[in-house]
Amino acid sequence: MRILVIHGPNLNLLGKREPEIYGTLSLNDINQALETLGAEFGCSLRFFQSNNEGLLVDEIQQAPENYDAILINPAAYTHTSIALRDSLSAIGLPFVEVHLSNIHRREEFRHHSYLAPLALGQISGFGLDSYLLGLRALFNYIKN
Amino acid sequence: MRILVIHGPNLNLLGKREPEIYGTLSLNDINQALETLGAEFGCSLRFFQSNNEGLLVDEIQQAPENYDAILINPAAYTHTSIALRDSLSAIGLPFVEVHLSNIHRREEFRHHSYLAPLALGQISGFGLDSYLLGLRALFNYIKN
Amino acid sequence: MRILVIHGPNLNLLGKREPEIYGTLSLNDINQALETLGAEFGCSLRFFQSNNEGLLVDEIQQAPENYDAILINPAAYTHTSIALRDSLSAIGLPFVEVHLSNIHRREEFRHHSYLAPLALGQISGFGLDSYLLGLRALFNYIKN
Amino acid sequence: MRILVIHGPNLNLLGKREPEIYGTLSLNDINQALETLGAEFGCSLRFFQSNNEGLLVDEIQQAPENYDAILINPAAYTHTSIALRDSLSAIGLPFVEVHLSNIHRREEFRHHSYLAPLALGQISGFGLDSYLLGLRALFNYIKN
Amino acid sequence: MRILVIHGPNLNLLGKREPEIYGTLSLNDINQALETLGAEFGCSLRFFQSNNEGLLVDEIQQAPENYDAILINPAAYTHTSIALRDSLSAIGLPFVEVHLSNIHRREEFRHHSYLAPLALGQISGFGLDSYLLGLRALFNYIKN
Amino acid sequence: MRILVIHGPNLNLLGKREPEIYGTLSLNDINQALETLGAEFGCSLRFFQSNNEGLLVDEIQQAPENYDAILINPAAYTHTSIALRDSLSAIGLPFVEVHLSNIHRREEFRHHSYLAPLALGQISGFGLDSYLLGLRALFNYIKN
Amino acid sequence: MRILVIHGPNLNLLGKREPEIYGTLSLNDINQALETLGAEFGCSLRFFQSNNEGLLVDEIQQAPENYDAILINPAAYTHTSIALRDSLSAIGLPFVEVHLSNIHRREEFRHHSYLAPLALGQISGFGLDSYLLGLRALFNYIKN
Amino acid sequence: MRILVIHGPNLNLLGKREPEIYGTLSLNDINQALETLGAEFGCSLRFFQSNNEGLLVDEIQQAPENYDAILINPAAYTHTSIALRDSLSAIGLPFVEVHLSNIHRREEFRHHSYLAPLALGQISGFGLDSYLLGLRALFNYIKN
Amino acid sequence: MRILVIHGPNLNLLGKREPEIYGTLSLNDINQALETLGAEFGCSLRFFQSNNEGLLVDEIQQAPENYDAILINPAAYTHTSIALRDSLSAIGLPFVEVHLSNIHRREEFRHHSYLAPLALGQISGFGLDSYLLGLRALFNYIKN
Amino acid sequence: MRILVIHGPNLNLLGKREPEIYGTLSLNDINQALETLGAEFGCSLRFFQSNNEGLLVDEIQQAPENYDAILINPAAYTHTSIALRDSLSAIGLPFVEVHLSNIHRREEFRHHSYLAPLALGQISGFGLDSYLLGLRALFNYIKN
Amino acid sequence: MRILVIHGPNLNLLGKREPEIYGTLSLNDINQALETLGAEFGCSLRFFQSNNEGLLVDEIQQAPENYDAILINPAAYTHTSIALRDSLSAIGLPFVEVHLSNIHRREEFRHHSYLAPLALGQISGFGLDSYLLGLRALFNYIKN
Amino acid sequence: MRILVIHGPNLNLLGKREPEIYGTLSLNDINQALETLGAEFGCSLRFFQSNNEGLLVDEIQQAPENYDAILINPAAYTHTSIALRDSLSAIGLPFVEVHLSNIHRREEFRHHSYLAPLALGQISGFGLDSYLLGLRALFNYIKN
Repeated sequence: MRILVIHGPNLNLLGKREPEIYGTLSLNDINQALETLGAEFGCSLRFFQSNNEGLLVDEIQQAPENYDAILINPAAYTHTSIALRDSLSAIGLPFVEVHLSNIHRREEFRHHSYLAPLALGQISGFGLDSYLLGLRALFNYIKN
Repeated sequence: MRILVIHGPNLNLLGKREPEIYGTLSLNDINQALETLGAEFGCSLRFFQSNNEGLLVDEIQQAPENYDAILINPAAYTHTSIALRDSLSAIGLPFVEVHLSNIHRREEFRHHSYLAPLALGQISGFGLDSYLLGLRALFNYIKN
Repeated sequence: MRILVIHGPNLNLLGKREPEIYGTLSLNDINQALETLGAEFGCSLRFFQSNNEGLLVDEIQQAPENYDAILINPAAYTHTSIALRDSLSAIGLPFVEVHLSNIHRREEFRHHSYLAPLALGQISGFGLDSYLLGLRALFNYIKN
Repeated sequence: MRILVIHGPNLNLLGKREPEIYGTLSLNDINQALETLGAEFGCSLRFFQSNNEGLLVDEIQQAPENYDAILINPAAYTHTSIALRDSLSAIGLPFVEVHLSNIHRREEFRHHSYLAPLALGQISGFGLDSYLLGLRALFNYIKN
Repeated sequence: MRILVIHGPNLNLLGKREPEIYGTLSLNDINQALETLGAEFGCSLRFFQSNNEGLLVDEIQQAPENYDAILINPAAYTHTSIALRDSLSAIGLPFVEVHLSNIHRREEFRHHSYLAPLALGQISGFGLDSYLLGLRALFNYIKN
Repeated sequence: MRILVIHGPNLNLLGKREPEIYGTLSLNDINQALETLGAEFGCSLRFFQSNNEGLLVDEIQQAPENYDAILINPAAYTHTSIALRDSLSAIGLPFVEVHLSNIHRREEFRHHSYLAPLALGQISGFGLDSYLLGLRALFNYIKN
Repeated sequence: MRILVIHGPNLNLLGKREPEIYGTLSLNDINQALETLGAEFGCSLRFFQSNNEGLLVDEIQQAPENYDAILINPAAYTHTSIALRDSLSAIGLPFVEVHLSNIHRREEFRHHSYLAPLALGQISGFGLDSYLLGLRALFNYIKN
Repeated sequence: MRILVIHGPNLNLLGKREPEIYGTLSLNDINQALETLGAEFGCSLRFFQSNNEGLLVDEIQQAPENYDAILINPAAYTHTSIALRDSLSAIGLPFVEVHLSNIHRREEFRHHSYLAPLALGQISGFGLDSYLLGLRALFNYIKN
Repeated sequence: MRILVIHGPNLNLLGKREPEIYGTLSLNDINQALETLGAEFGCSLRFFQSNNEGLLVDEIQQAPENYDAILINPAAYTHTSIALRDSLSAIGLPFVEVHLSNIHRREEFRHHSYLAPLALGQISGFGLDSYLLGLRALFNYIKN
Repeated sequence: MRILVIHGPNLNLLGKREPEIYGTLSLNDINQALETLGAEFGCSLRFFQSNNEGLLVDEIQQAPENYDAILINPAAYTHTSIALRDSLSAIGLPFVEVHLSNIHRREEFRHHSYLAPLALGQISGFGLDSYLLGLRALFNYIKN
Repeated sequence: MRILVIHGPNLNLLGKREPEIYGTLSLNDINQALETLGAEFGCSLRFFQSNNEGLLVDEIQQAPENYDAILINPAAYTHTSIALRDSLSAIGLPFVEVHLSNIHRREEFRHHSYLAPLALGQISGFGLDSYLLGLRALFNYIKN
Repeated sequence: MRILVIHGPNLNLLGKREPEIYGTLSLNDINQALETLGAEFGCSLRFFQSNNEGLLVDEIQQAPENYDAILINPAAYTHTSIALRDSLSAIGLPFVEVHLSNIHRREEFRHHSYLAPLALGQISGFGLDSYLLGLRALFNYIKN
């Protein structure tokens, strides 16, 4: 089982930015934790981060050739990108949407997601665990 | 570690109702799966289901005496009950909100949650897995 | 043919309350008129009134075992209870929604119904006749 | 007792149009069923259908000279015609508003009625039965 | 003069919950302070608290037999319960609505009250004093 | 100076309908009063009433051949007819919009006018005087 | 018959300001034209202009002692002053609201009037004529 | 292939009205251009214009007997007529909606169309070309 | 303890205006009743009424030099004056907002208060008693 | 005549994605069809597709040097990109906006276009034909 | 070059009020700093502060006789005063709107300005510097 | 002191585009004027322009290593980019938001800024001067 992990804009700053919201782990820490859990499941993972909406769309479009599913934290593009939504809709791979922070506790404009209605499900608020739980959900879904 | 699992209105019908939305598991199946996972974590669980907003509030109020955390699927009361919100706010126990179905894919009035801003986080869309992931999230949170 | 007649909150006060809106009949009068009409149709009826959202949900959930259809005046819960909606959706029995007064002539917040989109139809404004017409509609629907 | 039955725009197509919404009866079938029931009640009925808002208003204005009440399915004009509302308000005859389909289950713009607040009541969702129940309600109202 | 004092959901937790919002008094303290003031006025008081919307409606419905007026803190149901509103409207007893905290300083969804338009008046923001002032207002109103 | 006076839907009922809103004058009374005033000004007037949006549009379209200006009470079509607006915009004759009743004191949906932004001005609330003042305004405008 | 003419904020600039909206007449010109017409009717007029909401309220409050009616152009306060509305409601004198420009053709925020629902009627869009027609309407109203 | 071309209200004024919006062609010019293009395609065309919503509905209802498709410029009724929408929905013929002007550049109330969701497609902004392109689209659609 | 009592616009008319809303007491009656109660508490009171927003702001700004608290009925400015809000926020004195009538029973635009979120609390609906209860609340607050 | 054809995000997937919405043609098929039609008109065309908002803006900015007009399917950016709008506004070339699917039949958020008010016109719903009709419209516009 | 500096309501409290929002400078400090900078530019300045909307309007109306431009901090009236807007629009002097605090970071109701659309520009958030930058902008504008 | 100057999408077209909105200066002219003023202050400046949201985010993320503050004209992304907001929030450098044109005078959708609540302040409407004043504000802020 091959899974593409996509990190949206500004997530490359993790660990350096606003730790009261996002915790102190770096993106690398997250990727390593995912890799460890993936190994347990027998999943191979590839990681992709970009601040660029267009590059994220490019990456998603090519996913069906190499991956069985996507784990995505769309960050700010959750709330503004119909292009991301369209690319995920187009490729048809199952995906899970995760958020480090609890988006329902933050600004009003972060409560709505363009992607969530197409996702298997959404997990938000558990820091690193949001990713790990998302990977687990994805793994279980595909296995069945 | 003791965890109270609360199921909101109509969840006692699981397995008998609308399987295209909620899957075919009964509430008992869910509880057993949770118990198994809880045992793995060394958690003891108690289960409570009610269709009655007031009884749910009663139960939540007494939780701090016997439990360390709450795993709750508030079902329809997610969207209408400020009383439930107030009880969870009052007792101050950490809790996770879970939903079997992806609430963002359903009617507009199911997108908003009165409880989510107070929860550690929200998990929606993974059927039984929503509960299991929620228990896992709760366990990890308390352990740290 | 067995029909469950459900009266929502405050309808036990009929005849004693605001006669300029609801007329002077008591709930008992309504039930007797329904019983008489039901007898004509060869229907047996059972009546249930509660001020309690949760008890109404409980009652609706058990209906499929004993009834073929439901005649319901959800009163105030028409406008606030997603739990009632979910229970009716879950059991899948045909039901008709009735209102004594013309809800479109009253406060704005009484114009919307969470239940109506799931009902066979809605009848509002005819006092006792709303119930009798609703029973008739239900009877005709099932007969065909 | 003389009753004017008014059918709004496009109802002349009944039986030929969208049977999944409106059933398979023609307008003539509806009128005959009404006539039969009216005869039972000792009511004489006249039927009027038009696709033209102005002609409907004209007809309503002349009703008080010849009729005791109006049974109306305003169809699309339910949601857009203040002129129809004003004519019904002006003549002051009691009227009942009926709809073949359950308007609360259809597009958002069909949920609001300009006429309902002036009607004795509104009946929607029972196909032919909506008309028959409406006639019954009207008959009972005038009789008392 | 006999007055029924009704406390809505979660008010049984007073003194144990969020003191920065509600102060440190228990519900018992409030009741005793009311009793003392009531004695001064020659009023007998009975106290009723429930987390259950339906039980609150039941209690209100029976009030006219034993009481001259109602002092009510509807708490969370202030903002969601049309059933409570309908029961108060039905019995027709004068009532005063009180809130411990200043509801206009809290979340947007706490600014609107379904009950206030039917109340003699509303008092919010003075902690225990909200109750005492409300009792005073009620007493003066009935006395005149 | 030739002026076309247009009366919208239901105004043919004047004197027979809701006198508490529209007064007791008939449409004929209004026309005669206008004629008298017009004669004073040396204006010839023609009167046109229809309940039919399309016929009103037809009449307006032909106005430029025979008239210098239009005095119009669009009644219910004030609030719903973009077609009327477009016809008045197309012909480019100066026109005044009048209302017998004070539309700002009535239902919310009567506060907005599709025609007013194109009119010289709007006069509402003075009964017959609304027409007479409107004629006067029109006369003064054209004279200058 | 004594009439108080009230001019709201910035109307003292008439003739000097934005002639493309308000024309080239000064406030004095308007007052003289009113006086001339008033004389015809046998009305005595007094004129009052202020840019100050409070002073306008003061003036209105004292009107009942000396005047039979009020002609008011509330200008900008039309859209923002509940205090002006309350003063007119309190004194109970009949009044007419006039506007030089067609307020329905201007910015959205100028379409709503706090005063109009209490006025006999509203006249807008005819420049000086708005005042003269308003005086005429007021005179006719009181005379009858 | 037989196509019905429907022109809504005020389009009979084309060439005489607001050329800065609609260009200088008359309705006849448009019809001739369509006829020429239709001839190229081997289509026979019939043209119908009315200012009357009801007559437009009548015409549409009879279309299935004689035509394969409809080309419609609903003009002002685009934005207000649910009756037109219902008639097009009922007959089920493929149709294309065209507008001479770019409706997205005009008033806010012209941006929404009741018909567009049922049309094959919508073309707006190209003057005469909107019609010609629409005919072409219709022809291609039916041919395939 | 020194308390400034501020009465907003039009309250000088009390007793002369709309008694069905405000009762029959004059402003003087209210002030005397407050003085009597203040004397009981050992409070000295000063009274200030103005119809002028700016003068009310001036008065509030100077309050800290001479007063410990403010009792204010902002009347119409409750709903429109951010300047009043800013002055109360700037001086930082505790204040209570009172209303003679139940503002939640009146027009929609009277439900919102710019001042209430800054007040200790709000009391509305008890006529003279609103003031007296407000003074009592203020006294108790400062005493503690 | 030189025309730049711009395809927005995800259109490179055409033929591979959601054929029930977009048909089975690839982007290449569309380009060839356009090229063929362009040749007929004597137009040279260049094609540009990107998933990247910024690159689309770059391309549009350089268009005036080499092209006479633009044919654009902005896809998802139709609804979210003010930057695209600004670039088209800045360069001032005539452009036509096209959509393969009928955007008025899809999700609410696809009904609004930031670009359409600046376009010559908008064509939506005809699959490949939307492009071909758009090219035709553009050609005719420039030719005149 | 002569410039009128206008300070709106409550700004006379500067230095004494909420220093965490407005800083610790007094209005006098601001005026002196402006005077110093004005002297550098060869501008003479006059300062005017009032809490009274009407007096501010009076002052603005007289400005054209003595000043070339206006620098204004409208404070609370920014958000509520159409009268201020009208006066600035009427006199036609260039003006700059400044705010000490960042109004976009404060309550929602402070984000909208009635004056900004008429201003040369708006500067907000820089404390004393907002005024100094505003003066500079005004000076540069007039100089050119 | 080192300052990064960021120009958003389409600003590279300055001088070539819509001079009636943005003036006739090129981006280079702006940069030189800023450099000159920066030199006066002893600031070194670097300039960055991109049409690409992602590249702007990249640039902002790296700013803390080399700069003390940011001067940004986010252009179209002001109104749509949460990603830009998040990057500025993450790095925590002080920044000033500037706009050449007065955004409050333009389309409704340009009135809201996602960045302004995080900025020191916002300056809009002064052309080149908006940048120069912004630099000045930034310099003064850091100096203190």
